[in-house]
Formats: sequence, C-alpha cells, structure tokens
Amino acid sequence: MSSIFSKIIIGEIPCYKIAEDDKFIAILDAFPVVQGHVLVIPKKETDQLFKLPREEYNELMSYTYNIAQAVKKAIPCERVGMVVQGLEIPHVHVHLIPLNEPSDLQFEKKLKLTVNEFETIANKIKSYL
Amino acid sequence: MSSIFSKIIIGEIPCYKIAEDDKFIAILDAFPVVQGHVLVIPKKETDQLFKLPREEYNELMSYTYNIAQAVKKAIPCERVGMVVQGLEIPHVHVHLIPLNEPSDLQFEKKLKLTVNEFETIANKIKSYL
Repeated sequence: MSSIFSKIIIGEIPCYKIAEDDKFIAILDAFPVVQGHVLVIPKKETDQLFKLPREEYNELMSYTYNIAQAVKKAIPCERVGMVVQGLEIPHVHVHLIPLNEPSDLQFEKKLKLTVNEFETIANKIKSYL
Repeated sequence: MSSIFSKIIIGEIPCYKIAEDDKFIAILDAFPVVQGHVLVIPKKETDQLFKLPREEYNELMSYTYNIAQAVKKAIPCERVGMVVQGLEIPHVHVHLIPLNEPSDLQFEKKLKLTVNEFETIANKIKSYL
C-alpha cells in the first residue's frame, strides 16, 4: 500500500506545497508543532533515512539545505531544527522546524491553523526559494 | 569562549570517542536519551547547522551517514533517528539516536550509564566502522 506521502506526491491527497522537483517534494506538515514546520520527502518510497543509498541520502540532505534557508528567511525564529525519526510513517521525511526554544520541538503538541494561515505560510516560504 | 565541544576536540574535556578525522569527531553523548546516543560534530565551531556553508554541511551529513550505519549495526534498534536543534550549545552537533518507539526521542529523560557501559557501547560502535 502507498504511504500517505506517496498519495500526496501523486495528488491523491492535497497538501500545501513549498517546492518540488523530479526526486523530492517539500510541503507544510499538516500537523505542525510550530508555524513553518516543513517536511522534505523523497518521491521514492524508502522506509528509513539511513537505508537510502549514500547518493540519494546526500541529494536529500542537499535539497533540505535549500528549503531550510528559505524557511529561516520566511519564519521569525532563532534557528531551523532538523529531525528525522519516522517510526509512524514508513516513508523517509525530514522535519524542518523553526525553533525559538527547546519546547518548540515537542511532537506531542500540535498547532491548529486555518487554511488561510497554511497558505500564507507556504507562500511566504516559497517567495524565498 | 570555546564551546564544550571545542574543549572535547582539543582534549581538555574527556569523551567516549567513536571516530575522528581532520574535520569531524563522533562521540557518545554524555547525557544519552538511549544507549548508543551519538553526537557528530564539526571541529570548526559554527553556531547553526544551516549557517554552515553548503560544502561543509554536505560533508557533515555524509560523515554522519557513515557513523549512523555503524550505530545501526551495533545497537539493537528499529532505526536510527537524527536530530539537530542546538539551542543550548552554540556549536553544531548532530544527534544520532537509536529508536524503537517515539518516546525514545524525549530529550528530557536521560539515561545514567557507568563508565564501563559507555566504553562497551563506544567500542561496539567503533567495531563496525
């Protein structure tokens, strides 16, 4: 069965898209822990970050760097954190999370944003790419 | 003032070393959240991951990949997670954390390990490099 991210990639499930090329997609996390919480996802479905072949891993990390620069410019924050865990969805995804304090990195708490807020954030990040 | 990691790098503060080359060092986190919690650190002191020049960032990520492969082989776990936050120590460090369940990623809880346990874990990871 396709992962939820594969369904987003083929357009079966909607998303707030930040960027896309032939190998990767960057979208807003639909369950953000802070405003500007982004996911960077390889289109090829692989379960674990460190199971990616080295070359694909390097490309993903390099793509993530580009997106992170735009997130830092778009979202007021002290820095952009990066987290890869993936125990819940078996399709590699890199979290980019604007941080101001350590508690911003708690995955238990989720922000509720309106469609308008999601769209405004996505457009702002895109404007820096 | 030098960061605690710079002091570790020049040997002023002891550590449980996993690997080292001219640019990077990998050590056991002295305050691990699980057994096998490793830090990968560029020797050059930079505050934020995404302030690293692209080339240095790419090299750090590639070095991290090597260390993560050894951690995965050495430590029984479902996968190896990766976290970069760094609000507390202004010197880039990549956390590699063996994960079995989401709660393994809580930075509030810290394991207490003996010197012997730290050394055993470090040697086991090193044996896979």
